[in-house]
Amino acid sequence: MPDAEIIAVGSELLTPQRLDTNSLYLTDQLNALGVEVVRKTVVGDERERLVDSILGAAARSEIVVLTGGLGPTEDDLTREAVAQALGRTLEFDQAICDQIEERFRRFGRKMVEINRRQAYLISGAQVLHNDRGTAPGQWLEQNGVALMLLPGPPNELKSMFERECLPRLEKVLPAQAIRTRQFRCVGIPESDLDQMISPVYKQYPTLATTILAVSGEIHVHLRARSARADEAEAVVAEAAEKIDALLGDRVYSRNGDSLEKVAGDLLRARHATLSVAESITGGLLGGRITAVPSASDYYVGGFLTYSNEMKTSLLGVPAEMLAEHGAVSEPVAKAMAQGAKVRTGSSYALSITGYAGPDGANVGLVFIGLAYPDGVEARRVQLPGDRERIRMFSTNTALDVLRRKLGG
Amino acid sequence: MPDAEIIAVGSELLTPQRLDTNSLYLTDQLNALGVEVVRKTVVGDERERLVDSILGAAARSEIVVLTGGLGPTEDDLTREAVAQALGRTLEFDQAICDQIEERFRRFGRKMVEINRRQAYLISGAQVLHNDRGTAPGQWLEQNGVALMLLPGPPNELKSMFERECLPRLEKVLPAQAIRTRQFRCVGIPESDLDQMISPVYKQYPTLATTILAVSGEIHVHLRARSARADEAEAVVAEAAEKIDALLGDRVYSRNGDSLEKVAGDLLRARHATLSVAESITGGLLGGRITAVPSASDYYVGGFLTYSNEMKTSLLGVPAEMLAEHGAVSEPVAKAMAQGAKVRTGSSYALSITGYAGPDGANVGLVFIGLAYPDGVEARRVQLPGDRERIRMFSTNTALDVLRRKLGG
Repeated sequence: MPDAEIIAVGSELLTPQRLDTNSLYLTDQLNALGVEVVRKTVVGDERERLVDSILGAAARSEIVVLTGGLGPTEDDLTREAVAQALGRTLEFDQAICDQIEERFRRFGRKMVEINRRQAYLISGAQVLHNDRGTAPGQWLEQNGVALMLLPGPPNELKSMFERECLPRLEKVLPAQAIRTRQFRCVGIPESDLDQMISPVYKQYPTLATTILAVSGEIHVHLRARSARADEAEAVVAEAAEKIDALLGDRVYSRNGDSLEKVAGDLLRARHATLSVAESITGGLLGGRITAVPSASDYYVGGFLTYSNEMKTSLLGVPAEMLAEHGAVSEPVAKAMAQGAKVRTGSSYALSITGYAGPDGANVGLVFIGLAYPDGVEARRVQLPGDRERIRMFSTNTALDVLRRKLGG
Repeated sequence: MPDAEIIAVGSELLTPQRLDTNSLYLTDQLNALGVEVVRKTVVGDERERLVDSILGAAARSEIVVLTGGLGPTEDDLTREAVAQALGRTLEFDQAICDQIEERFRRFGRKMVEINRRQAYLISGAQVLHNDRGTAPGQWLEQNGVALMLLPGPPNELKSMFERECLPRLEKVLPAQAIRTRQFRCVGIPESDLDQMISPVYKQYPTLATTILAVSGEIHVHLRARSARADEAEAVVAEAAEKIDALLGDRVYSRNGDSLEKVAGDLLRARHATLSVAESITGGLLGGRITAVPSASDYYVGGFLTYSNEMKTSLLGVPAEMLAEHGAVSEPVAKAMAQGAKVRTGSSYALSITGYAGPDGANVGLVFIGLAYPDGVEARRVQLPGDRERIRMFSTNTALDVLRRKLGG
């Protein structure tokens, strides 16, 4: 299968403020055709650097998508650079010019002289019609490489890609199917997880596996490709079954749902309700739970008890218990969860108490309390990282404790 | 001045879901040193492609920053690829291995075998210490090119760049003075702010001005560069004074402090305390307030009253008021704030109630309540965006209402 590269053109994409987001859309579209994007490049509006990028991409990959630099001003250099890189000429095209003029007329404006620059076509190129703007795209094939020049504005690019590029790509590509699976886990370090599952995924040479650490969670993606859909499905299904068995109940989601969504769905299915009592996280847990639309189906609210006084007055944690065990302790985590459950009338309640630092002893020590209909329990964890990560990871652990209790 | 290229390594950055955002931070840092980023590349975890990218970048530019691919797994290839591209060997470093083992021990875990991969150093490279994770970075100079290998996780990368790379870059770069100012505002659209201050910053040709919209806030950065420090200072000071006068009390910070830090410092200075009562934000406001170390100096806690029942039982909002005005109303916002203040004994209390959507009427309508020592008030705002943005912007507005009441 051919590989693709994407080159985004524009000096504004090399500032601290702007990212090339068109490539996400293009990658999605190309992946759906079975094409991998193997490199993405961002270059500024400089002719020699741009020519160099195009030459490199065309030498390495069979599909080259250029975005941006098709405007009317002097720093729009994509047309010139592609022509130079491929050793072709630029030719003025009266039909394109007429269409641009007509478009201006339609919006009650007169085409200014500089827009004539947009009417130059690389010799041998096909015009890609732009139904959302003035800049036409161009399509070329040379030495087994398909190049397309697309406009930078996302709405113009998307419309042009779907109408004009997809049919041309389908003609040049061999038919191929892609089948995927994913797993999301929490509570296991990336390296441990990799060591556990790599003996499986290495058995399948046609399987692409990525393991990603995201905010203290681990996401595993499997992707199998084949000319035949049933073959791709067979490979990914077999590998996924083995990996699933190894990961066991560490997996909280197989469809990309977030941990808070999974826990929420389990509560809803059991007609259960949830409240929280947060100390170290100060509200982050409640914030995550309510990030899910319709969380009000199962979430009632809770208590932010940052000070010891509040743990006593709002949750009824005995002052003697705080004095004896300290606020970061198993008895206090349990008493907080129990207090939230009783005072809100919820069927489940989660509590978090711990040390987030940056200063003091035992930074990263966290207790999660869970009160459930017929009892209460607590879990002790030692979390790595800085204040922000300790707080975020604490909410992961709390939601995972709840998920496991609910049998998810 | 030397040019820089950034190479982000990781197959996950070539999927439709993920962008390389580290390059924004790195570009900002490099620009501040007077270095332009002339190309950004994303490559997957494939050795030959990676070697090819490194060779190209090192041939074109004087500074090459590589991010990612320093993990412990087999698809972490940056070390090997750089060694191959530069014709150097990889050597096992016992001191690095000991540090990684020690880090695992500190978190009560045992280092697994594959983490030894992270202890290989490219011959002649300097170690860049990682204080947030296991993967050390590496710094090399060869043929007038400085290369640095940085870890992918943003918090590890930022800490390492600031501590380890900046001092080394300053040594290899020609001396240049840069003087900066910054303003952070909330409650004004980016385009309005630009229209207001652009007549000022356009008067200074040597001044670089960036205006950045970040989570509903606007950050303005001014940067003057000159071979002479006093010249750079004179330009930036004059422009900043004029812009400050135009922005007035919209500015909440001139030193980069976050809104929650500024509000917290004002509370601390007044020996005041704060509690919260959150509905729509479900804990995000408390989460932000407690993101600031030592927030316990002024923050006591509060109430998450997602359901109407909790607004009544935990905060004493009269059921008749909820029935008559609805939960999203000025009287309820005031009653929530008053309830939190009374029940926690804090001197100030903030409340947030509103509609975050995605479904239903009046999405984006939010009331902020503020109870203060001698009264209570509420502010009505209509916020743009989706559920996530409405919730985030609500916390901005709440903190800004408090800041203004405290005279900050």
